[in-house]
Amino acid sequence: MYLTQGLKRAAQIKPNVLATSDGARTRTWSDLIERVAKLGGALRELGVADGERAGILALNSDRYMEAMYATAWAGGVFVPINTRLAPPEIAFWINDSETRLLFINDTFAPIVADLKAADKIPSVEQVVLMSDNAPSNGELAYETVLDEAAAVSDAERGYEDLAGLFYTGGTTGRSKGVMLSHRNLVFNTFNSIASIPFSEDAKWLHAAPMFHIADCLAIFTITQVAGQHFFIPGFTPEGVLENVQQHRITDTLLVPTMCNMVVNHPTVGDYDLSSLRHVAYGASPMPEAVILKALEVIPECKFTHAYGQTECAPLSTANGPEAHVVEGPMAFMFRSAGRAVPGVEIKIVDDDDKEVPRGEVGQIIVRGPNVMQGYWRQPALTEKALRGGWMHSGDGGYMDENGYVFVVDRVKDMIISGGENVYSAEVEDAVYQHDAVAECAVIGVPDDKWGERVHAIVRLKDGETADEEAIKAHCHELIAGFKCPRSVSFRDEPMPLSGAGKILKTELRKPFWEGREKQVS
Amino acid sequence: MYLTQGLKRAAQIKPNVLATSDGARTRTWSDLIERVAKLGGALRELGVADGERAGILALNSDRYMEAMYATAWAGGVFVPINTRLAPPEIAFWINDSETRLLFINDTFAPIVADLKAADKIPSVEQVVLMSDNAPSNGELAYETVLDEAAAVSDAERGYEDLAGLFYTGGTTGRSKGVMLSHRNLVFNTFNSIASIPFSEDAKWLHAAPMFHIADCLAIFTITQVAGQHFFIPGFTPEGVLENVQQHRITDTLLVPTMCNMVVNHPTVGDYDLSSLRHVAYGASPMPEAVILKALEVIPECKFTHAYGQTECAPLSTANGPEAHVVEGPMAFMFRSAGRAVPGVEIKIVDDDDKEVPRGEVGQIIVRGPNVMQGYWRQPALTEKALRGGWMHSGDGGYMDENGYVFVVDRVKDMIISGGENVYSAEVEDAVYQHDAVAECAVIGVPDDKWGERVHAIVRLKDGETADEEAIKAHCHELIAGFKCPRSVSFRDEPMPLSGAGKILKTELRKPFWEGREKQVS
Repeated sequence: MYLTQGLKRAAQIKPNVLATSDGARTRTWSDLIERVAKLGGALRELGVADGERAGILALNSDRYMEAMYATAWAGGVFVPINTRLAPPEIAFWINDSETRLLFINDTFAPIVADLKAADKIPSVEQVVLMSDNAPSNGELAYETVLDEAAAVSDAERGYEDLAGLFYTGGTTGRSKGVMLSHRNLVFNTFNSIASIPFSEDAKWLHAAPMFHIADCLAIFTITQVAGQHFFIPGFTPEGVLENVQQHRITDTLLVPTMCNMVVNHPTVGDYDLSSLRHVAYGASPMPEAVILKALEVIPECKFTHAYGQTECAPLSTANGPEAHVVEGPMAFMFRSAGRAVPGVEIKIVDDDDKEVPRGEVGQIIVRGPNVMQGYWRQPALTEKALRGGWMHSGDGGYMDENGYVFVVDRVKDMIISGGENVYSAEVEDAVYQHDAVAECAVIGVPDDKWGERVHAIVRLKDGETADEEAIKAHCHELIAGFKCPRSVSFRDEPMPLSGAGKILKTELRKPFWEGREKQVS
Repeated sequence: MYLTQGLKRAAQIKPNVLATSDGARTRTWSDLIERVAKLGGALRELGVADGERAGILALNSDRYMEAMYATAWAGGVFVPINTRLAPPEIAFWINDSETRLLFINDTFAPIVADLKAADKIPSVEQVVLMSDNAPSNGELAYETVLDEAAAVSDAERGYEDLAGLFYTGGTTGRSKGVMLSHRNLVFNTFNSIASIPFSEDAKWLHAAPMFHIADCLAIFTITQVAGQHFFIPGFTPEGVLENVQQHRITDTLLVPTMCNMVVNHPTVGDYDLSSLRHVAYGASPMPEAVILKALEVIPECKFTHAYGQTECAPLSTANGPEAHVVEGPMAFMFRSAGRAVPGVEIKIVDDDDKEVPRGEVGQIIVRGPNVMQGYWRQPALTEKALRGGWMHSGDGGYMDENGYVFVVDRVKDMIISGGENVYSAEVEDAVYQHDAVAECAVIGVPDDKWGERVHAIVRLKDGETADEEAIKAHCHELIAGFKCPRSVSFRDEPMPLSGAGKILKTELRKPFWEGREKQVS
């Protein structure tokens, strides 16, 4: 049970069939496995073997996928890095994981060159530029590395061996590395096949960012079934529409914000989207208006809501096309995150981890072969998250009589904005670093475009001044743009506190959400 | 990752939906899990826990399935026993596995009572009669045991813990217990979902014997997807036809001999078979004439050829509906056993375990999370079968350029007659016990009804006499009827021998197979 096994099978049964298509570049499965075997050889020479880490900081491409498989082939561990991070955050991920080799594309060459020059990423011995352009900062050229390498045989690390480190935000304000083993990732492909349509005639568009576990699900599962991969460097609604039409794309995964931008695009009617038969979505609640619009714009297309989290590799529940209807007994059941996927156990529990009756809200906990090994070098956090052998999702929800899970709140203080998880604590940490700030609470408030938007409520120190723009600009220096507050409000009174002395965010959220139903995921 | 997890999920998402239907008796998933939890409690009281073995010697029924799940729930290991064995063989399986508790149905009550009375199965402490009739030989009554038991929580043995012992014939003439772990059996359900249609709206007819790993595949996989189980005690073509019509059966698994009897049944046209959408078949080669007839009689029904063996839990390759056509580029590709299923590796190797080029015949070897732990208490045989980490199937075959495997011969000396594996050595062992026999070779010869039939070639000792009927009758005293020679021929010259002194069966087979193409599986 190891990740590259799927690649070997695809090469065995479809050697001369298209595997990847990225712009003008196409590869068959036998091309691909040959390149992976060579790049794997190069990586091993460069020290990426026996569990050593290779980071990937790049926009989507066929080479991104090659780099992941080659790292596994060499016996290493890949570390996909969020492309929207601020440089200090990038450095933190790299340093925390002790990444020895870093794959980048042109976009990130200047940032990484700066980080290297400032000695901020000392563990990185080599940077490999995945580009047809010549390196200009001392990077190794990807195609040269590959050309000059000798193919090696697969290291065949598998089962409990670590395959990837996926960083996720944390309530403590710092990202932590989610350790996913070969078993976790391979098992997730089978959970996915069993609950989302994945078939060998699929033409899958990688439109969601490949550093995210949701798109990794598609990378590994489409390979597992020997379907075809198509790539766009980053999401734009036009990019999706054009590629679907041009390549007769059959399947993709989008977060609801993307889905919204596609189905409400002014020229959506100009494209032939008839090839599109299935869209999986997840990572955040889908507004009802978007689903309804989608069912109208692409009526032949089916939808599945996939719910999970990085720690679950990621799939935990799924809700299929039969729930994406507005009439009959299943009408509007798309409001649910669906039912436990085969092989995965879901329970709703109280604070003592006792299962609550159906219909009662508790924390959603998850168990199965997909659940992470733990947080990288964080035994205390690991033990807490995995107590009793179950992953504590941090999400609040209830289960109906037929096992449908409704996510009603985030127990962890997290905002989902445009499909990205933003941890309030991390944003608060940044806001608090402003000299004028006395007290701060960051909450999610309803936003028509982003689902939720990051909103900061600030109380200034006596005699200090700072306006909304100053707070925003301050945050932009410290954390990724998508995490920064999009709006700021000021108050003079102290924050409302709970008996335990915690800021009562429920109170703070109330005025923003009154008269609106909080979306379920 | 444990077998009863699928049952728990089905009970979570479909508590009030039909799970099993057997004659007049139906159970919902919540009925079923309650019964399993109680029977599991009873089993634990009776000593079936912590890996202790419970045998099952019975015709198909819902209770057979309950007994399997309850054994796993209790923490025990189930041992499904071939219903066609002769009493000494039954005793051998029970004794070899040290079965403590034996589930039987009425059919086997007299045989088991005799075995107990003769002290031939000393390890068996309790016999449980799965029947509505009162026990008459001191057995425990199944429903009474269940009624009086207190439900216990699942032992949750899983992953590498042993789940089942499945006995299979051996070239050494003795059955050996194939050790299948929870991981093996659970992973096989996912291999199956990924390559055979298994959907939650399936109504599956268990027509093939449940002691066989092929039907166990369906037991565990239909539960995994929360489909519905229907049972008939044993295969008859009328039973299949009537049940398909009555229950609107959608899916089933048949061996080719059964398929033949169904599609060529004189009254097949009188039944409404329109609900039948998919038939999986395996365990032996399917004659072309049967496939063609099936495509004619039930044109809406799709076929998948599943190839595997008990040691692979069992699925290794599959060949889907796209290959069951007689026109176009895939015409007659149903002659192939198909391609490696997702998650499973297949190679064709020479005697040194080196992969041979495509198109060349070698031994089919298999690797994956489905491959058995080994043979029960047979470390030498285990090491040989699993050398290099691959299961050596004993089947000869080749692979085409697109990964399609064609099985061309049995490297192991095995005859497949009516879907049952018959090991020549075991039959020869019986024939040789006849006092008049000097030399004997048992081979498979073509048979229109059974695919292959067991044929014995015998050279008698000088001055001794024995006719065909005497040889057959002699065998019937020693081994199961299906293993006994259906025909016997006599020769005066010694058998042709290889350089290594082995009987050259290829020479002996020739006159029977001349002018006929040996079927591929």
